[in-house]
Amino acid sequence: MKNKFLTVAIICKRDDSSINEPLTKLVNFLEKEGHKVIVDSNNPDDGLNNSNFLNSKNQISNDKLIDLIIVIGGDGTMLSIARQFSPLDIPLIGVNLGRLGFMTDITLDKMLLVIGDIIDGKFITEKRSLLEGFVERNEKELFSGIAFNEIVVSRGGGSEMVELKVEVDNNFMYNQRSDGLIIATPTGSTAYSLSVGGPVMHPELEGIVLAPIAPHTLSNRPIVISDRSKISIELVAGAKCSVSFDMQSEFNLTSNDKVIIEKSLNFVNFLHPNNWSFFEVLRKKLLWYEFPYIKK
Amino acid sequence: MKNKFLTVAIICKRDDSSINEPLTKLVNFLEKEGHKVIVDSNNPDDGLNNSNFLNSKNQISNDKLIDLIIVIGGDGTMLSIARQFSPLDIPLIGVNLGRLGFMTDITLDKMLLVIGDIIDGKFITEKRSLLEGFVERNEKELFSGIAFNEIVVSRGGGSEMVELKVEVDNNFMYNQRSDGLIIATPTGSTAYSLSVGGPVMHPELEGIVLAPIAPHTLSNRPIVISDRSKISIELVAGAKCSVSFDMQSEFNLTSNDKVIIEKSLNFVNFLHPNNWSFFEVLRKKLLWYEFPYIKK
Amino acid sequence: MKNKFLTVAIICKRDDSSINEPLTKLVNFLEKEGHKVIVDSNNPDDGLNNSNFLNSKNQISNDKLIDLIIVIGGDGTMLSIARQFSPLDIPLIGVNLGRLGFMTDITLDKMLLVIGDIIDGKFITEKRSLLEGFVERNEKELFSGIAFNEIVVSRGGGSEMVELKVEVDNNFMYNQRSDGLIIATPTGSTAYSLSVGGPVMHPELEGIVLAPIAPHTLSNRPIVISDRSKISIELVAGAKCSVSFDMQSEFNLTSNDKVIIEKSLNFVNFLHPNNWSFFEVLRKKLLWYEFPYIKK
Amino acid sequence: MKNKFLTVAIICKRDDSSINEPLTKLVNFLEKEGHKVIVDSNNPDDGLNNSNFLNSKNQISNDKLIDLIIVIGGDGTMLSIARQFSPLDIPLIGVNLGRLGFMTDITLDKMLLVIGDIIDGKFITEKRSLLEGFVERNEKELFSGIAFNEIVVSRGGGSEMVELKVEVDNNFMYNQRSDGLIIATPTGSTAYSLSVGGPVMHPELEGIVLAPIAPHTLSNRPIVISDRSKISIELVAGAKCSVSFDMQSEFNLTSNDKVIIEKSLNFVNFLHPNNWSFFEVLRKKLLWYEFPYIKK
Repeated sequence: MKNKFLTVAIICKRDDSSINEPLTKLVNFLEKEGHKVIVDSNNPDDGLNNSNFLNSKNQISNDKLIDLIIVIGGDGTMLSIARQFSPLDIPLIGVNLGRLGFMTDITLDKMLLVIGDIIDGKFITEKRSLLEGFVERNEKELFSGIAFNEIVVSRGGGSEMVELKVEVDNNFMYNQRSDGLIIATPTGSTAYSLSVGGPVMHPELEGIVLAPIAPHTLSNRPIVISDRSKISIELVAGAKCSVSFDMQSEFNLTSNDKVIIEKSLNFVNFLHPNNWSFFEVLRKKLLWYEFPYIKK
Repeated sequence: MKNKFLTVAIICKRDDSSINEPLTKLVNFLEKEGHKVIVDSNNPDDGLNNSNFLNSKNQISNDKLIDLIIVIGGDGTMLSIARQFSPLDIPLIGVNLGRLGFMTDITLDKMLLVIGDIIDGKFITEKRSLLEGFVERNEKELFSGIAFNEIVVSRGGGSEMVELKVEVDNNFMYNQRSDGLIIATPTGSTAYSLSVGGPVMHPELEGIVLAPIAPHTLSNRPIVISDRSKISIELVAGAKCSVSFDMQSEFNLTSNDKVIIEKSLNFVNFLHPNNWSFFEVLRKKLLWYEFPYIKK
Repeated sequence: MKNKFLTVAIICKRDDSSINEPLTKLVNFLEKEGHKVIVDSNNPDDGLNNSNFLNSKNQISNDKLIDLIIVIGGDGTMLSIARQFSPLDIPLIGVNLGRLGFMTDITLDKMLLVIGDIIDGKFITEKRSLLEGFVERNEKELFSGIAFNEIVVSRGGGSEMVELKVEVDNNFMYNQRSDGLIIATPTGSTAYSLSVGGPVMHPELEGIVLAPIAPHTLSNRPIVISDRSKISIELVAGAKCSVSFDMQSEFNLTSNDKVIIEKSLNFVNFLHPNNWSFFEVLRKKLLWYEFPYIKK
Repeated sequence: MKNKFLTVAIICKRDDSSINEPLTKLVNFLEKEGHKVIVDSNNPDDGLNNSNFLNSKNQISNDKLIDLIIVIGGDGTMLSIARQFSPLDIPLIGVNLGRLGFMTDITLDKMLLVIGDIIDGKFITEKRSLLEGFVERNEKELFSGIAFNEIVVSRGGGSEMVELKVEVDNNFMYNQRSDGLIIATPTGSTAYSLSVGGPVMHPELEGIVLAPIAPHTLSNRPIVISDRSKISIELVAGAKCSVSFDMQSEFNLTSNDKVIIEKSLNFVNFLHPNNWSFFEVLRKKLLWYEFPYIKK
């Protein structure tokens, strides 16, 4: 099983020199175990060999020979990397420099131990879905993007609400007047969607949540639908409105533009240690134990 | 296709004499179309033949020859019937005497038209999941029940909270302190669960929601999991606590009792006219259009 | 008491010709009762005398002799008028052309009857508070506005959250990361604030609600404080952010701008028939009776 | 000012021997400063003089000469003591043995320092309101109680909802079908009411919140009214229903029983150090800083 991950890429934020020591340790450890290791960018002070470096992340994208990517950083870094590499189907491991993240669930102090187990074949694979969105104007596709967390259609500046016509599998759902609508994957259910009252969704649920932001109508509640559904969101009214993908790419809509959303054919594959538990991550991230008891 | 429903059973509340006229019309219509029709109970004043009546609902249960059940009543009546007949796998049609229901979605004025279409083979079948729950004490099963809407473990009288230990597929989720926990199917997502902040779930979603009632910890939010999961709820603390199935059967728990919940192997099969839409029912039931605009 | 309202101004949307008949009826009725009546704008087809018209609303503002303003229109029209005339302390009556409004609570069919009672002295006065807001940059006041519903500090276009530092009476409350913060009066508590989970506040409550929009931190809940408080909101971070007053006037903020909010010294005075009840309006607007029962 | 608190009573849980050391320190400190100190119950191992002890809390109640009560324990202990002594108008200080509480906001490590300041006159007084409730059956009063947090009218065991007719100042509000209704003070707004979606209320707000538990009608939202209001709650339907006062005393209701609720004429007076801030307590208790950022 060990030969499963011949070439390992490490992607990390190099602007913080505190990364140097753990990074060097990890590179040395992996090389000692017989893996070829490449790091996404050079830093003159870290003592690594030049042969370890790629010139750019694009090189990783084109290099089909990479067998494993280790991301060292926070959930934001992982979000970027997961979106970017999802078409390549390379497994991902997340190491968090600070507090535990939802997606970067290995802490620095246990990094070598856990990664050692994983490259020894002791891991579970977790498949996470992504969304693809297309903007149509006059039946032509103008823009497209993918999202690992959520696609958001929302009002721009100005205080005017937007009115969105939502259809699911060509069935009319409603015209919604609100600040916007969040379409989230299970992965995104603990992000923006949660802040507007959406439910947590387990990663294994084959579902997508539609969570309205400040809906005009009190009974416009979050709705969870099957991830086999095709969602169409048409901008009916609202002077300014945009669609955003993981808050990382954005496109301005005009009236009658449609955003078509479907589950991506690609997946993100996280590797976790065998004793990993989604609920343990939830407990820690949502402070289920430390959270103050609000009743006496 | 017409011969698909040779024998049709009609179940309705007979205590209201206003049922007589539509019931007689429906029986005559179905008999004219060549169906054998039985009605669940006699009412001397309705002018139907004695041959139309069963002595009891149990007779329907045991009569494997019934091909279709038409329920005339409200969602409460349909809930009872759906739970009761789910093991027999007989398709169900719901006619609502008053306002449109979530499950009784044919109005009286269109009854003959819509049912005529359905017995002509113009219908869509919608499969709805149910839950089964077992109470274990000292590893012995004490009680069991099925639920079409929800299983609720909640505090009894007295103001003490309950503490529930929840596991999903043998993974510890949390110890929750609250007034109780609602485990709902997609069908039940528009009932009790919605009133505590749970999401609406489309009937095709293969999911189950765990929605806490007045949880002590603010971040204990509704969680949607796959309906392939096995849920275990153990009563850790709380002087009085019970488990309820669709609010229709109930069992008192004592400390360390476990309620084990899984999706039932049975389904409820609703027949709908071809143009039926779940979202149209939602729009009408949740007053998405009539609901007052709350922003200016 | 009748002489209390010698001069009555009527403000209405004149762009809809359906207003002509009720308007003419109301003018005739009031003139017959001995009141001087002026209407805010001319419409050649309504058959009223030229002497009835003012050239502009500004003329009303400067005319201290007006004793009563009757607004015919929806809540949006009343909101504009109430904000505009609040410094003049002239009582207001609201007639709704369509469905009952929160602030325009007299329906067209009962207009003459109810207004007849009110000008006969059979009424109750309801005092509603307003907010004043000032934008400070480098300790200079750049912009100010008043709000009858709410002042909103919120992100502009783009998907970046804003970070707001909130102080109340010079006590630090929190740095909040969110889509924005709504500061609402009791009147505004049934508008935008309600759509983000804020409570309904009775008009007699001397309170202000701070309701966050999609807050990053789950425990950032709506907070109701005394309306004697002075609130300061500083923009700490967020590329685009604006402050809006009743969604009618808006100002773009830059980092470190402060919005200072206090209760206005002015009030809006609504006149209601003696049997008026705030709860009756709530029942009708929030559909407490017609709303579908969500439990079986 | 020092002579303001000649006699100081200390009330604490004596069942935990870890209390002995801090208690003895506090008694010695206060006696050295010239105060007469009494402790609510004896513990043979703590080394205090017998003269320090009262036989019972009732003795404190009747002893009008006590000038200050120091409660050492958690919020639950303070809740009991505040309710019990509210008629005597004796100021209260709360020392928390563990984590900071909402009402016991002095930590053990700063106890002598903070209490030293307070008895030196360096303090602010905070007046907190209480509620009184009366149960009427056939116009006779059957039961009464006071509440510092909340009065709750809620369903007992069984899964049946209750239907409650609510009036405020003799104005009909609504018939509510739900699991129950919480009537909370600002102090109680961070307790049970918060767990059902009620707002936080600042202690200076002269308000009362009515927060429904799992209401049948989605638009039955928490409502904040003036604390000058008189609330009447009549049990219309529901097989089992009770009224509870601070979850500490309870009374079973039968159909047509009315619970009448008003603000108590008594107050609880907390003494805080001069730099005390309600918002600081909120920040710590609701983990506004430590709480995980849920957006990336």
